[in-house]
Amino acid sequence: MATDQAQSEAATSDTYEEFEQRVRRISNVSNAAGILQWDQEVVMPEEGTPARAQQLSALSSIGHELLTDDETGELLEELEGETTESSRKTSGETASSDLSDEQEAVVREVRRRYDRETSVPQELVEEISETTATAHPTWKQAKEEDDFEQFAPTLEKLVELKREYAEHIDPDADPYEVLFSDYEPYLDLETAERVLEKLRDELVPLIDAIDDSGAEIETDAFAGTFEDDDQEALARDVLDSLGYHWGRGRLDTAPHPFSSGTQFDARVTTRFEEDDLLGSITSTIHEFGHANYTLGLPDEGYGTPLGEARDLSVHESQSRLWENHVGRSRPFWEHFLPIARERFPSLEDVSPEAAYEAANQVHDDNLIRVEADELTYHLHIVIRFEIERDLISGDLAVEDVPEVWNDKYEEYLGVRPETDAEGCLQDIHWSHGSFGYFSTYSLGSVLAAQLYDAAEDDLGEFDDDIRAGEFGELNGWLRENVHQHGKQFTTPELIERATGEEYTAEYFLEYVKSKYGELYDLEEY
Amino acid sequence: MATDQAQSEAATSDTYEEFEQRVRRISNVSNAAGILQWDQEVVMPEEGTPARAQQLSALSSIGHELLTDDETGELLEELEGETTESSRKTSGETASSDLSDEQEAVVREVRRRYDRETSVPQELVEEISETTATAHPTWKQAKEEDDFEQFAPTLEKLVELKREYAEHIDPDADPYEVLFSDYEPYLDLETAERVLEKLRDELVPLIDAIDDSGAEIETDAFAGTFEDDDQEALARDVLDSLGYHWGRGRLDTAPHPFSSGTQFDARVTTRFEEDDLLGSITSTIHEFGHANYTLGLPDEGYGTPLGEARDLSVHESQSRLWENHVGRSRPFWEHFLPIARERFPSLEDVSPEAAYEAANQVHDDNLIRVEADELTYHLHIVIRFEIERDLISGDLAVEDVPEVWNDKYEEYLGVRPETDAEGCLQDIHWSHGSFGYFSTYSLGSVLAAQLYDAAEDDLGEFDDDIRAGEFGELNGWLRENVHQHGKQFTTPELIERATGEEYTAEYFLEYVKSKYGELYDLEEY
Repeated sequence: MATDQAQSEAATSDTYEEFEQRVRRISNVSNAAGILQWDQEVVMPEEGTPARAQQLSALSSIGHELLTDDETGELLEELEGETTESSRKTSGETASSDLSDEQEAVVREVRRRYDRETSVPQELVEEISETTATAHPTWKQAKEEDDFEQFAPTLEKLVELKREYAEHIDPDADPYEVLFSDYEPYLDLETAERVLEKLRDELVPLIDAIDDSGAEIETDAFAGTFEDDDQEALARDVLDSLGYHWGRGRLDTAPHPFSSGTQFDARVTTRFEEDDLLGSITSTIHEFGHANYTLGLPDEGYGTPLGEARDLSVHESQSRLWENHVGRSRPFWEHFLPIARERFPSLEDVSPEAAYEAANQVHDDNLIRVEADELTYHLHIVIRFEIERDLISGDLAVEDVPEVWNDKYEEYLGVRPETDAEGCLQDIHWSHGSFGYFSTYSLGSVLAAQLYDAAEDDLGEFDDDIRAGEFGELNGWLRENVHQHGKQFTTPELIERATGEEYTAEYFLEYVKSKYGELYDLEEY
Repeated sequence: MATDQAQSEAATSDTYEEFEQRVRRISNVSNAAGILQWDQEVVMPEEGTPARAQQLSALSSIGHELLTDDETGELLEELEGETTESSRKTSGETASSDLSDEQEAVVREVRRRYDRETSVPQELVEEISETTATAHPTWKQAKEEDDFEQFAPTLEKLVELKREYAEHIDPDADPYEVLFSDYEPYLDLETAERVLEKLRDELVPLIDAIDDSGAEIETDAFAGTFEDDDQEALARDVLDSLGYHWGRGRLDTAPHPFSSGTQFDARVTTRFEEDDLLGSITSTIHEFGHANYTLGLPDEGYGTPLGEARDLSVHESQSRLWENHVGRSRPFWEHFLPIARERFPSLEDVSPEAAYEAANQVHDDNLIRVEADELTYHLHIVIRFEIERDLISGDLAVEDVPEVWNDKYEEYLGVRPETDAEGCLQDIHWSHGSFGYFSTYSLGSVLAAQLYDAAEDDLGEFDDDIRAGEFGELNGWLRENVHQHGKQFTTPELIERATGEEYTAEYFLEYVKSKYGELYDLEEY
């Protein structure tokens, strides 16, 4: 029996190795595509598009074919079978597997992707891909010309295609739930819905109270014009200060800031507008949070899910934690303002308190999501979430989107868009066919607060550290409790292990009530 | 019969389409790898190497597997069979094929690569790849420590592996010829040898005559120090002036200047040393020549050999033509010196004649290939070629390389290296296992002269154009006669079509004798 078991373990080990090699190859193809995308956004000459599109399409097809190949399916079955068989063998004892926990996690993650990608016919994937390719310029022109009707047929088509896509993956499930789980596979839609409702119910009165308070906070601390070159130098100061690992990263500019890469090479982009210094600082901190997560993934996991980030909500929790809990805190500005003054002597007369206040203004009259503050932001998300749900379920017709959009803005934010360009055409996501994506922004903010609270519970308040420009303890906690695990645990498991609790909006609401109650001097908060 | 033929043509067309799709995919994978390599040399953070190595290795394996797949072989046979069959059918008439001339060229080129790659066992490919991966740091350290013995065992191993490699491809051929044809498939080794011998026989006395002439030419026109930023601005001026297509290119710095890319995106790199302004200008012009060739390949050929450059000699002919025939000419300096003075007012007192002379100094006491002038350069190449031939044939033992190297330098150039670091360890190529590569540098220079002469034959002398900064006619000729053909013709065909003659060293020798005879006031030239 001992020999049998040893042989079986050796066989499993061979099978696993073959499986892992395959997984690594798929991952390397996808990471290569990531470099091509970075290149396209940041350095590619403008006329390079036709060749780049073909290169990316080739890599995408190759990755898809490698993943959905019968051999992947056979290897998965064999490895899953081994688990069962070995459990049978040891029946009577605790069920065990020849695979380690880490290996089982890799099998689980690849199985999930395999099942999803094999269930959608290739023709549909291609049709979606072709439709989104032309949807993007159509959306852009419709937005420029403030003409929703130009975009409506495309949106209609994308809604239909994505419904069909969802049906292939799981004909019994709510299609929106299937789409949502493309971005967030382990927090279920019900949880997302519960959290978003809670945010809506509690943020609307908080924002109203701020509006009613008549409190005046400093708003023009960063008024003025600021040269791009100096802003870039300051963005580098920000990254230096937070401890960005330059040996594995770089900073560039891009029209839409993003970060991308792997644990060996996680790059940040930002952008500069001469009248918005604060915007470039907070955006740089946000992208730092994403890149810093990527850099904390274990080197040895490179090429498998163990070395990949847990999905969008967890990623967003890292960017929001650094952007909001660190970068929009009072001690941060006590630390950072002197550094900013070195680059911009005109900030000499700005106090840390004024900078803090400027970084935390709430404007309920803002129509644009990407310009929103920490509170109203989530109402922008709630509106998109509610509209998407109804669009996909068929309860809302595409032609009615502008009116419903405007009504909801009026209801939740008390402001009505006058144009669709600054209304339902403002965001790019639907032109990508990305229904279900938006909510992960809010889910991430909520998780950021929960994680930050747990870290302070473990290590004490970080205020003094931040004031001293010391971010090592906080980052160490995130490395240990979040980053190093890659995709080993599901999102709920990861949260539970890190915070000792289930995922909850409680900490986020506590944080914003306390912060904004104090800032705006609100009696009831 | 007519219907039969129509059906056969339709079948061929389907087969060809399937074949071409496969070829395009292979090409896209290889072009993606090209972007990753550019990224690695130019922008990648230093610790990105482990992931990048895996990404490149995955793309390389995928490309190799796609090319050597049985299906590629079957498609090739089918397409070649169609040719024969169709020839049979029309016997009596001129043999014709269902494939167009262009399609036949694609089949020819892919067949050549297929045969070569399928004939070498994968284990040998991997062994060579692993050996060169470690050879590079070994060579680097040996060079730094001036210790040939450290590198000797690796060189020995690489010589053996490459002999074995050549034997797999063609057991009946001279192995050095097989290696040479990796870089230059259509100019045979005998031609290369004849040209190099001719260069040696004619350049040695010319260089001696220069040395004996005692003529003094201007050598310090570009003495001084020049800021990197200003040098970069001037490099952009150079590229502007020559008509570089910025919409499909960019300029960056890299430790070893190179150019790479496709007709949609052909990038140039250069480097700056504060005491070598001339070096950065000539190197930028050289890389422009390469990129300009790539940019002249037809858009519609992208992804197949019709949109790829003919091999290394033709590529080098383009860089050398621009670097030497344009960039080291008297009218070029009449045109460009005023532009350079705008960036560097210290050049105010330099005359175009002085700049021309400085750009054309001959130093026969220089030991380093990459610093050599237009004449002695080829003796550096001849020495490497002769040593490589004897190494691969077994007539020269690795341990004897340093002495033979030094002897040849003394014989051809009258100067003996005192160290191996500035002797046989100076170049990186052997650590890559690249035996047979060097000669293409000289073959390209020789071809540059032949093409330039043919272009002037067709269009008249370019001196006035160059003096006026007008490069459109020359470039138009190169586009029409060289660039647009991609790999449609073999190298000898391409040369014959462009110049009306076989490949010959005559024009190069005429050019250097006339130029340097005048410059150094040599009676006998």
